Amino acid sequence: MPLNYGDDVVIMFDDGSTYLIKLNENSQFGTHKGNIKHSELVNRNFGDVFELNGTYVYILEPTIVDYIFKMKRRTQIVYPKDSGFVLLMLDIKEGDRVIDAGVGSGAMCGLLARYVGNTGRVFAYERREDFIELAKKNLERWGLLNRVEFKNRDISEGFDEENVDAFFLDVPDPIPHIGNVWKVLKGSGRLAVLCPTTNQVQDVIKKMQQTGFARIEVWENLFRQYKPNPKRLRPFDRMVAHTAYLVFGIKINQEEKGVDSK
Amino acid sequence: MPLNYGDDVVIMFDDGSTYLIKLNENSQFGTHKGNIKHSELVNRNFGDVFELNGTYVYILEPTIVDYIFKMKRRTQIVYPKDSGFVLLMLDIKEGDRVIDAGVGSGAMCGLLARYVGNTGRVFAYERREDFIELAKKNLERWGLLNRVEFKNRDISEGFDEENVDAFFLDVPDPIPHIGNVWKVLKGSGRLAVLCPTTNQVQDVIKKMQQTGFARIEVWENLFRQYKPNPKRLRPFDRMVAHTAYLVFGIKINQEEKGVDSK
Amino acid sequence: MPLNYGDDVVIMFDDGSTYLIKLNENSQFGTHKGNIKHSELVNRNFGDVFELNGTYVYILEPTIVDYIFKMKRRTQIVYPKDSGFVLLMLDIKEGDRVIDAGVGSGAMCGLLARYVGNTGRVFAYERREDFIELAKKNLERWGLLNRVEFKNRDISEGFDEENVDAFFLDVPDPIPHIGNVWKVLKGSGRLAVLCPTTNQVQDVIKKMQQTGFARIEVWENLFRQYKPNPKRLRPFDRMVAHTAYLVFGIKINQEEKGVDSK
Amino acid sequence: MPLNYGDDVVIMFDDGSTYLIKLNENSQFGTHKGNIKHSELVNRNFGDVFELNGTYVYILEPTIVDYIFKMKRRTQIVYPKDSGFVLLMLDIKEGDRVIDAGVGSGAMCGLLARYVGNTGRVFAYERREDFIELAKKNLERWGLLNRVEFKNRDISEGFDEENVDAFFLDVPDPIPHIGNVWKVLKGSGRLAVLCPTTNQVQDVIKKMQQTGFARIEVWENLFRQYKPNPKRLRPFDRMVAHTAYLVFGIKINQEEKGVDSK
Repeated sequence: MPLNYGDDVVIMFDDGSTYLIKLNENSQFGTHKGNIKHSELVNRNFGDVFELNGTYVYILEPTIVDYIFKMKRRTQIVYPKDSGFVLLMLDIKEGDRVIDAGVGSGAMCGLLARYVGNTGRVFAYERREDFIELAKKNLERWGLLNRVEFKNRDISEGFDEENVDAFFLDVPDPIPHIGNVWKVLKGSGRLAVLCPTTNQVQDVIKKMQQTGFARIEVWENLFRQYKPNPKRLRPFDRMVAHTAYLVFGIKINQEEKGVDSK
Repeated sequence: MPLNYGDDVVIMFDDGSTYLIKLNENSQFGTHKGNIKHSELVNRNFGDVFELNGTYVYILEPTIVDYIFKMKRRTQIVYPKDSGFVLLMLDIKEGDRVIDAGVGSGAMCGLLARYVGNTGRVFAYERREDFIELAKKNLERWGLLNRVEFKNRDISEGFDEENVDAFFLDVPDPIPHIGNVWKVLKGSGRLAVLCPTTNQVQDVIKKMQQTGFARIEVWENLFRQYKPNPKRLRPFDRMVAHTAYLVFGIKINQEEKGVDSK
Repeated sequence: MPLNYGDDVVIMFDDGSTYLIKLNENSQFGTHKGNIKHSELVNRNFGDVFELNGTYVYILEPTIVDYIFKMKRRTQIVYPKDSGFVLLMLDIKEGDRVIDAGVGSGAMCGLLARYVGNTGRVFAYERREDFIELAKKNLERWGLLNRVEFKNRDISEGFDEENVDAFFLDVPDPIPHIGNVWKVLKGSGRLAVLCPTTNQVQDVIKKMQQTGFARIEVWENLFRQYKPNPKRLRPFDRMVAHTAYLVFGIKINQEEKGVDSK
Repeated sequence: MPLNYGDDVVIMFDDGSTYLIKLNENSQFGTHKGNIKHSELVNRNFGDVFELNGTYVYILEPTIVDYIFKMKRRTQIVYPKDSGFVLLMLDIKEGDRVIDAGVGSGAMCGLLARYVGNTGRVFAYERREDFIELAKKNLERWGLLNRVEFKNRDISEGFDEENVDAFFLDVPDPIPHIGNVWKVLKGSGRLAVLCPTTNQVQDVIKKMQQTGFARIEVWENLFRQYKPNPKRLRPFDRMVAHTAYLVFGIKINQEEKGVDSK
């Protein structure tokens, strides 16, 4: 289906740089190689390539990873290297009812909304109103806003839901909230906590053990990218060394058990 | 909802060992700590804990990760550390039409089927009939069989579909098939290739560049797990060092361009 | 120079397995491929290869890494991946006077002794007499015993030396000793502390800052080995995920400064 | 011993930035915090700290790692993460005769010279005269020049020495030289080759197997540094992802054996 005004496209240049734009009448996109009028892209197709002053320009369909990296944000986002793994460990699927706290710019919220499907629901808690507004805009662009119930509230007041399937906790100080997280999860419900420091991982594990979580697992993910040169294959010189530690656990129907799942 | 015969449950012991069983009348589960009759689990709930001869036993709801690691398999499976990332990079979503070749034991096929939703479809090519049978059994257990069209065929004959959204290629020698993969993908469609060796990565990159793929990226993922001891936090002594390199690319509507997306 | 009785040799088989033996008259070395009389090796040379019942046998000169991995030990050893880096960060060189506490089986002690040269000296503190005896035997085999002064003592009593150039601290609880380490180091003297857990790293950093150390650095080293197959190059399936965190610092001539070198 | 003109010192500021300077009469060192006259440092001691307009300044003794990172260079240097390990794998020790080709800026040459001691010798081959001059200056500053014999020559002509103990090969295309390396090594002599790409690793392994090397090992080293904050311990955000692959081997007294040491 040929492109039309209102469509999102990713423009990629030969050097690998990418830009996410929405096609607008009378707009143009300025580049170091010259300008591209949006009207020139209309009626082309995703995957098309054209020349612009000696460089190739690719018209690509935006993926969720493009949206995550290109979206407006004011917070640290959850990287795909972590979020893909979290989705599986939280066992997110159609129909799931999931809590996301705090929402931040909405990257993880969007993924959760995508994968709970039309019959699922994401309850998105965020204290800061400006973050909520930003996340709503991002979710709207992805067509997922109707699956998310935003709550502009400090989570120290607890959560409204009951028997949720999974909980994604990404707040500066998660420890005081783990008791309330336990209450709102169903039996065997899954929790993921993002912790930037080892000190916090230690405290979160301890609190989860005391609160009534089992199968506690701690992971960190190192992703390394290679230069795609078939004659000189080698990793890029530098890489992301750390985003966060991921702590997972399963709610058991018993408080203060204090067991170590080892 | 209390457990009943026919339900799948994960039984976990204090030492972290887990077992996936389906509750059957008149069956029992033998452990080093004694036997557990399935009838004793009926009417209990996910998340329940009980004592058995001095150890705790946890009744957990199976997650997709449990199924992947516990399912019957005759092949190397795609690990969650890789498959979660592949799902995002392939931008799998409701309604997508995706090809999975070869299927193997069906771990990735199951994930694709889960996330294309009711309106999506997975076309699953596998040369070996015994693998197809195994994958079908696994998919049936996950309730996802109706989303998958199995094709017991050598893929050197090409693919029946047109304009598929994404392609997951995991066969011993992917190089000769990349031309046919290009044909069957829609413009800007996403491809992921699993390559165990650097030699194969080199050849796959080269072939993808010649065939008409752009935005070629190569990644490898190192996941490290920590002992969840809050007083002595440290990684486990050993870890998985390698499963496979992941090569990604986007179909462009032009063959033999030979561009290097860098 | 041809081999003679009394020489140490490494015997390697085609499958990569290695054995460190000392040539003795009338001895023989039993293998799964048959026996090798030591007398058959005498008058051969390092680097020689011979056939034994269909497999190749290699006669190799033992390296320090062979000795470290093959030596008798009752403790966790410092791995070459860590010890080579420690040598450089401690700036070990001819003439240095270095303290090693605790000695354990003597792997690091041997490396320090090797690289301080004939004019340097290693002061080796170890509480357990059996470890001292073991370390002495290992050092003797390497011809380095005369460079080491062993002290069979609990280090909570402090150290006898003054103005040492470098200090390697590898004991179960290093925190209480850091004050005494500071006293015994010269100005700008280098300290390395091995810490298995993140909790200990945190405590060691804090104590070093309070005590009068600057340029505090924390490192961990992940070494990955590849299968040396030129047609199918790929890492081994599994690797060492963790040995210890390495904490380094430089003594400043001022106590209780509490600065964070960041 | 108090500092005097002619001494090298490392100046470190509170923010961790460091500068290597040689004390000269009438010189001063300009910083963002103001100027430091060299004469103000004379008669102070290594480890001293003083205040300068509200920041602390530390006077540290330069280590070999300081010299390596601060030396003038026109080439990629061998990082301490790699060079410490290479020293152990090459089993460098007093009295060893070692070849270093190519020398580049001399970082590895300096380490080899340091650890072969007064009775050892480094033969340093380098095609480019400007690199030789640079390396000589660096070696002279470290007081190690007399242990090194420089040869300004293309190594395709082969090597003058016989029976060397170890060989460090770090040139753009190592493959054509491996035959000559084999000739110049003693039996069971150790070889280390630095390879930036996987393609080169594959070719080097193959050539080493054909030439008469056994015990071929391939390693890569990932070093990760942590922010030394005891209350918020976590790795730095980014790290070095790749310098080079390290390929090691042992000369066997037999050519064209083609064995794979696996």
